[in-house]
Amino acid sequence: MKTLGIIGGLGPLATAYFYRRVVELTPAESDQEHIETWIRSCPSIPDRTAFLLGRSEEDPRPKMVEAGRSLVEAGAEVLAIPCVTAHAFHKDLEEGIGHPILHAIGELGKTLKARGIRTVGVMATDGARASHVYESMLQEYGVSCIWPDEAGQARVMHMIYQDVKAGRIISEGDFTEVGNALLQAGAEAVVLGCTELSQATVTMDLNEDYIDIIDVLAASCVKACMA
Amino acid sequence: MKTLGIIGGLGPLATAYFYRRVVELTPAESDQEHIETWIRSCPSIPDRTAFLLGRSEEDPRPKMVEAGRSLVEAGAEVLAIPCVTAHAFHKDLEEGIGHPILHAIGELGKTLKARGIRTVGVMATDGARASHVYESMLQEYGVSCIWPDEAGQARVMHMIYQDVKAGRIISEGDFTEVGNALLQAGAEAVVLGCTELSQATVTMDLNEDYIDIIDVLAASCVKACMA
Repeated sequence: MKTLGIIGGLGPLATAYFYRRVVELTPAESDQEHIETWIRSCPSIPDRTAFLLGRSEEDPRPKMVEAGRSLVEAGAEVLAIPCVTAHAFHKDLEEGIGHPILHAIGELGKTLKARGIRTVGVMATDGARASHVYESMLQEYGVSCIWPDEAGQARVMHMIYQDVKAGRIISEGDFTEVGNALLQAGAEAVVLGCTELSQATVTMDLNEDYIDIIDVLAASCVKACMA
Repeated sequence: MKTLGIIGGLGPLATAYFYRRVVELTPAESDQEHIETWIRSCPSIPDRTAFLLGRSEEDPRPKMVEAGRSLVEAGAEVLAIPCVTAHAFHKDLEEGIGHPILHAIGELGKTLKARGIRTVGVMATDGARASHVYESMLQEYGVSCIWPDEAGQARVMHMIYQDVKAGRIISEGDFTEVGNALLQAGAEAVVLGCTELSQATVTMDLNEDYIDIIDVLAASCVKACMA
């Protein structure tokens, strides 16, 4: 069994939830059957969206590279980052750390392809949207993306920054309105495409129209570590 | 703000939940206001209760010391172990690691004293019970302990090992029967005194008769790191 390394804190609640899902998705009947996991939760890593949009000059990459290197030095063999926006820097991070990192959106692409989904609605940060990280990865799996309209995107950003990152509950009304609009616009499924949005699955009863990227990445980590 | 180091994996779900509570109890409005946290989740650490009861010769201390040392070397300043049974080795671990570790039961003692509680019911492992780790620490705070009867203790062990550690939900009937029996026997409050039992707070609606030791330890970590 391989050791998992998690570059976390982006945000911290998403990291705690991601690790919980790794544990829950691991087939184990006792502590000792679980995966050794090193977590560097570094909430001080500068905001990814602010940097991607040019609103801040604080580059989040050096601290992410430092965290990843320390995990690899400590013995981590499978690396993951439970922050989708950070995947805009995936190539730079792999090069800086000198170790492969599971790609959350690549793993999502495999899941969508297996389910025969060709068009997916994406709820994610402005940074992820502006970087085209979803489109560039999902096109390899024959999947195209639909994003919320301007007001819907602003609501998504509110859920991420004013709700989850500030320790509040996501508004169910806002969430389902944005999700329904994407489904009505032709999305065959809606991806909770920012790890903060997974908190919606904790407080709401979402049907299979919704795919949580944290679950996809956690399942891939378990598979990679148990292989 | 100090860096928190968590010696985890005992069990892994308790570690994920403990970190979630640290995050939730931190006064923060953005990622960057949260506590840097290094977690070594080592579920391969041998079972604490089996060793304490002489049922296994596998000593859990060396791996816990190794995890603690690596956390301190990485920069952790406040150390915590979200496993109450492991506190039977608290002194050995502090000596082996060469760094102080917050004492979950000591922090509980402060909480009980502040609430004016003199008699507490304890739901914890056979290992914690046999080691008298609760009694020896709580007597410093003028608190005495009541434990479940033999059948009740067996039910508690079932909840910990056959339910939580095996990925199942704790039976609400079993839990409340054991808790009620402790309250009827004179306990002024009942402590969820094994970190696995905190999962009961996730699925059940427990009143203030119940004190979760994970919450006590998480609050102390936040206080120590923000000091």
